[in-house]
Amino acid sequence: MACRSGCCCSFGPLNEDNARFLLLAVLIVLYLFCGAAVFSALEHPKERLAKERWVQRFEHFSQKYNLSKKELDNFLRNYEEANVAGIRVDTTRPRWDFTGAFYFVCTVVSTIGFGMTTPATIGGKVFLIFYGLIGCAATILFFNLFLERVITVIAFVLKFCHEHRHRRKAVLPQIGRPPHGFAHHHGHSRAGLDGPAGWKPSVYCVMLILGAAAILVSCCASAMYWSVEGWGYLDAVYFCFVAFSTIGFGDMVSGQREAYEAQGAYRLGNFLCILTGVCCIYSLFNVISIVIKQVLNWLLRRLKALCGAGACQGAAVGARGPHPHRRNAVAPGRSGARQRDPSVDTDGANESETDGRRMSGEMISMRDFLAANKVNLAIMQKQLSEMANGHLGQPGSGSRHNGFSGGVGALGIMNNRLAETSVDR
Amino acid sequence: MACRSGCCCSFGPLNEDNARFLLLAVLIVLYLFCGAAVFSALEHPKERLAKERWVQRFEHFSQKYNLSKKELDNFLRNYEEANVAGIRVDTTRPRWDFTGAFYFVCTVVSTIGFGMTTPATIGGKVFLIFYGLIGCAATILFFNLFLERVITVIAFVLKFCHEHRHRRKAVLPQIGRPPHGFAHHHGHSRAGLDGPAGWKPSVYCVMLILGAAAILVSCCASAMYWSVEGWGYLDAVYFCFVAFSTIGFGDMVSGQREAYEAQGAYRLGNFLCILTGVCCIYSLFNVISIVIKQVLNWLLRRLKALCGAGACQGAAVGARGPHPHRRNAVAPGRSGARQRDPSVDTDGANESETDGRRMSGEMISMRDFLAANKVNLAIMQKQLSEMANGHLGQPGSGSRHNGFSGGVGALGIMNNRLAETSVDR
Repeated sequence: MACRSGCCCSFGPLNEDNARFLLLAVLIVLYLFCGAAVFSALEHPKERLAKERWVQRFEHFSQKYNLSKKELDNFLRNYEEANVAGIRVDTTRPRWDFTGAFYFVCTVVSTIGFGMTTPATIGGKVFLIFYGLIGCAATILFFNLFLERVITVIAFVLKFCHEHRHRRKAVLPQIGRPPHGFAHHHGHSRAGLDGPAGWKPSVYCVMLILGAAAILVSCCASAMYWSVEGWGYLDAVYFCFVAFSTIGFGDMVSGQREAYEAQGAYRLGNFLCILTGVCCIYSLFNVISIVIKQVLNWLLRRLKALCGAGACQGAAVGARGPHPHRRNAVAPGRSGARQRDPSVDTDGANESETDGRRMSGEMISMRDFLAANKVNLAIMQKQLSEMANGHLGQPGSGSRHNGFSGGVGALGIMNNRLAETSVDR
Repeated sequence: MACRSGCCCSFGPLNEDNARFLLLAVLIVLYLFCGAAVFSALEHPKERLAKERWVQRFEHFSQKYNLSKKELDNFLRNYEEANVAGIRVDTTRPRWDFTGAFYFVCTVVSTIGFGMTTPATIGGKVFLIFYGLIGCAATILFFNLFLERVITVIAFVLKFCHEHRHRRKAVLPQIGRPPHGFAHHHGHSRAGLDGPAGWKPSVYCVMLILGAAAILVSCCASAMYWSVEGWGYLDAVYFCFVAFSTIGFGDMVSGQREAYEAQGAYRLGNFLCILTGVCCIYSLFNVISIVIKQVLNWLLRRLKALCGAGACQGAAVGARGPHPHRRNAVAPGRSGARQRDPSVDTDGANESETDGRRMSGEMISMRDFLAANKVNLAIMQKQLSEMANGHLGQPGSGSRHNGFSGGVGALGIMNNRLAETSVDR
């Protein structure tokens, strides 16, 4: 889209949602370039070494036994073919017995896809496509429901702790200061509103808890793999991350030897570890992505503020306003200034905000509307249904109106449950 | 949790959310068992064949050149080690030059994880964990924002088509029948409400569109791989599904040869194909998971209905009511019957429902509350904030109250935008 004002940071005809999407895409590409440079620097020397060593070994072997390069290459090609079917020098478990196939389908529906077992027949490949389509969708639903459960539990526990602390504080300071003052004097609980009823756990707090849970699960699982598989502990941690994040390279795969001590127990433990780990890391990724979204919003505001203060002041920002379509169905007058205040949702300055600020966009507008004491039931009903339905089809502005003004992805679950998510979107 | 009524299908102390979660888990495990059985039956014969062939070839090679099994095994172990570093008989591209590393980081952040390139150094493995943590979270956010954009566009286009059809119908039947009747006589548009303002696209319709898009992208990408890589077309389709669903076995990986004709164009095309494909399939998976959730809800209702009609009638169902905590903050009288009607959201019988039925739980209650003509602003404000904040911490019931009565996972995006999603959660 061309930028009409001639200033790249005023977004031109881009609305905020599209601008955020593009900004994220650009940042991810930059992130990929940086990562590629780092990995290339870290790994290239070792690759060269491995290549040299292999050439030496190949030469040595072919000279020692007087084999032509071509014959040896053919033999190795055969071995590669056998490799795909799951054959290794050191005998591994059968790939396609029932437990092997069960392990395989688990890696399919979870999208881990280690690749130690892959379908080789045409029937298997075709079946995989249809099987994976339903299976992966069901697993995504499972992960999302798990995320919902976990966020609910964490919010409950945190709220319980917060209320407990509140009550203790309300009892203790009766000696030193008037008890009614406590609600406005605990600056350390930056997470949410002051009253216990309006309090919500911080997304950072939930991130820390989920991170701790993920580290705990990874450490326990790594200890198991370290002892049972005989891997180095760091390798085991690396395997855990690769498996739990569903990347699943397949350079290390658990449970591939032909036999283990206490095989049944290990297989069950392996299954449970990977299941718990994947759920934890999925939840952690989603909470981190909320934080990334907040960073994006902050960046967008900074870009706009820079434009406003800089050369293109008044060119496009003033004319359009920061939220041209936001919440104007009910409360057109309040759409801009407060939402754009950069301090509102990034540095905890919103503690004194009222309960309504934590609600979804419609609810806030609703409250303002009601607070204006101009309640007309007919108009209100019409506006309610318009908010939920009417403006649906307008791309860009539509997402603000239909009950999911904060509903981004799997993160929708966390909206209105965590302190930062309902204010900042 | 023990079932107090003694009947396993009345859910006992399980609330609906937990029951749905458990039902899904059980169904997924069943699905895994079935899949394992089918794959085992399909693939086991071929595995045995491949194993026999490899043993023959190995014997033949060792006899022909008079090599001991041990020496040959050692050589093959060396080759396996070289394999991990990315070395193959037929020279492949360098793994860790910049473009190779870029491909690698793309497979990391997208969680495809083909595994054709894996970090071998300790530094690389440690860096991968931290790099992947941020990268995967950012990509999840990207996919979710993409999903949001795509759903908005599809809803806009479908709504436009629907309104166009509406207008034509409003003009045409003026000869045959009174024009004001059209709104209640087009039974074929089972997707949403009858008025154009309240109309929403069906989730099935969106699923079909996304499915068609995914098939189109896959077919085009397969044609590219088929012509450039020389794979069979079915193999190319299989590769596309495995890559786009982010399973990423790594048995087939695009762009691994040392050189291609028009190499730059192919690499760009490969990147764009995988990006588009992953986004499409991610969206498709999420829409399918909505449908799966509806099936689960239907199953739960059937189970409850069976219980209600069967032996344990009145034991727990009647005493607890279907929605013990649902929406009772504002409209305690209406929580049960209509929501539980099995026909409401599975067979399109809800066409004559009012606009409010499409809104979130709070909005509906709000409307009922307002419709009762007993508006007291102070109470209303209190209830609004209670709905959004107060009951947050109660697990189980909490999810009903806090503005996300329909907010399940990445699917939250689609709630209130598609016809089925806002009624049936």
